[in-house]
Amino acid sequence: MNRTIDWDGEAIVAIDQTLLPSEERRLRLADVSTLAEAIRSLRIRGAPALGVAGALGIALAVRQAQERGIDVQAAADEAAAVLAATRPTAVNLRWGIDQARHALAAGPDAVVARAVALLEADAQTNRKIAERGADWLDAVRAAQRRQLRILTHCNTGALACVELGTALGVIQVAHARGAVECVLATETRPLLQGARLTAWELQRLGIPFRLVADAAAPSLIARGIVDVAVVGADRIAANGDVANKVGTYPLALAARRARVPFVVVAPESTLDHQTVSGRDIPIEERPEEEVLGFGSLRVAPPGARALNPAFDVTPAELISAIITEARVIAPAVSAQGTVGPSSVHG
Amino acid sequence: MNRTIDWDGEAIVAIDQTLLPSEERRLRLADVSTLAEAIRSLRIRGAPALGVAGALGIALAVRQAQERGIDVQAAADEAAAVLAATRPTAVNLRWGIDQARHALAAGPDAVVARAVALLEADAQTNRKIAERGADWLDAVRAAQRRQLRILTHCNTGALACVELGTALGVIQVAHARGAVECVLATETRPLLQGARLTAWELQRLGIPFRLVADAAAPSLIARGIVDVAVVGADRIAANGDVANKVGTYPLALAARRARVPFVVVAPESTLDHQTVSGRDIPIEERPEEEVLGFGSLRVAPPGARALNPAFDVTPAELISAIITEARVIAPAVSAQGTVGPSSVHG
Repeated sequence: MNRTIDWDGEAIVAIDQTLLPSEERRLRLADVSTLAEAIRSLRIRGAPALGVAGALGIALAVRQAQERGIDVQAAADEAAAVLAATRPTAVNLRWGIDQARHALAAGPDAVVARAVALLEADAQTNRKIAERGADWLDAVRAAQRRQLRILTHCNTGALACVELGTALGVIQVAHARGAVECVLATETRPLLQGARLTAWELQRLGIPFRLVADAAAPSLIARGIVDVAVVGADRIAANGDVANKVGTYPLALAARRARVPFVVVAPESTLDHQTVSGRDIPIEERPEEEVLGFGSLRVAPPGARALNPAFDVTPAELISAIITEARVIAPAVSAQGTVGPSSVHG
Repeated sequence: MNRTIDWDGEAIVAIDQTLLPSEERRLRLADVSTLAEAIRSLRIRGAPALGVAGALGIALAVRQAQERGIDVQAAADEAAAVLAATRPTAVNLRWGIDQARHALAAGPDAVVARAVALLEADAQTNRKIAERGADWLDAVRAAQRRQLRILTHCNTGALACVELGTALGVIQVAHARGAVECVLATETRPLLQGARLTAWELQRLGIPFRLVADAAAPSLIARGIVDVAVVGADRIAANGDVANKVGTYPLALAARRARVPFVVVAPESTLDHQTVSGRDIPIEERPEEEVLGFGSLRVAPPGARALNPAFDVTPAELISAIITEARVIAPAVSAQGTVGPSSVHG
């Protein structure tokens, strides 16, 4: 599989995730407004991929400003504002934008170089995360003395990153080690990233899986057919509270009640040390139409309204482990209840 | 609005709930196998409506056996077996079937009379339930000193019964008393009874509402925008555990954590004194296709598989009150932890 998002020297090339699994089409995004639309409409999505997209977006702005002979700093600032506004909850997006902007001090070419370096680093980061996460699951497997039935939510695979993935990367490596019996993947309403994207990836990877309605997953945990839950994150507050795709919180509640381990997998760039707790994380409210219908099909009667928060917050105390490329954090048992900067980013 | 299900003297007449909200079509069901198909495919659905349908189905079988001069008892037994197998979790269905069969001792005409009497009694039962439930909500309103933001799940309105409804009947009466600020209605995947049926009913009733994705409801409870959760039931075990539409359990978990009252509304016929606890309730597994897409729209990639439990079990200890036409049961604070037969049915 090609990379989910890449740089062809002049523009961003990315797979259009709104068309999967029925169509595999690549987009070429040559300016910031086109990129912003692609992020807003979730053609590009997934926390790590958004980090890379943010950095590449600044690179695009700087290159175009150079070509047109306009002020490079102003162009970078404007692009940063436009891109950051597209997805308010996802901290990786802001992180990628900031990484590229800081490079501007060393000149326009350094911005492009920094963005491309982040792109290259993502696969390496995910490989480290996946190995560490698979080690953690090996311990669960040893304790439970069986291949694992793993519940996951939304899409956290290669499609959410440049390559491999976060939670799904862990599952992929665990599967290669023979530790996985099957994956239960939530469909993830309203945009069905689980049914469309995770199912597509799991099928290509040859990992046995079943899709389940989001609302069914908590009772499947209660019925004892889930050994561990593994999810991604869109922002992790300083106290270890995790914002992730809406529907993560009920899985954590059910896992706690059933004493099933609940694991969050994310790069260090998802840790937001400036945000004290989950209460301080802004929750993106997406268009009502996403809930009022199903794909192209309108379901609710005309005139019906909806609430559509895209994320929820899972309190740190419900999380068994946060696994990054640098470490394993155990917020539920942390003495201080805080997630400090790691040595790699501190 | 006409009754959801009725008897025209020779056959069952019922609104086809699979076509709502886009089309309002009435079915005429003149034999048991057509009725069984209508129940299996959820053209007729909702615990109280299924009770009436079960009784009317026995009446249909008995009338036809009389006309054809075949053994009436054998026809009733065969119809009972066919109908009971259509929805294994719903205890009202079995209850309605048994009520009509027991009447056969007094002759074939008594079966029809008994089934029609159950039909007539349903509206009266629901009126009592709704008044009692609205009284309970009045107390919540007084304690919280505000109009209530009520979360509900699936469809428990007139469409689930003959008239009025259970949980939605309570909400309707509470709204008439001025106690309701708004309703949050879950869409209820996979078959979207909330988005299709509850939204349609709430709109006709003029009650302000918003649809929410099932997975979003627990975090909306956590965020403090739900004052009380009110749901129906498909079977209540002797210890107070409640089987209801899949997705009820995560709402109860979130309500408990947020100290939001969680109320179950059902007729006494939903109480199954023969079933000791929720562990003993069979959970209907429905076709995988329901999760793999919606209606004619396929979402998951070809070859994908699904798990599709139609119900989940909420432990009694998470339930603030079970409200029936006869009483209010408080399983969470019950000294014995059991729900004994009431005086009206004991």
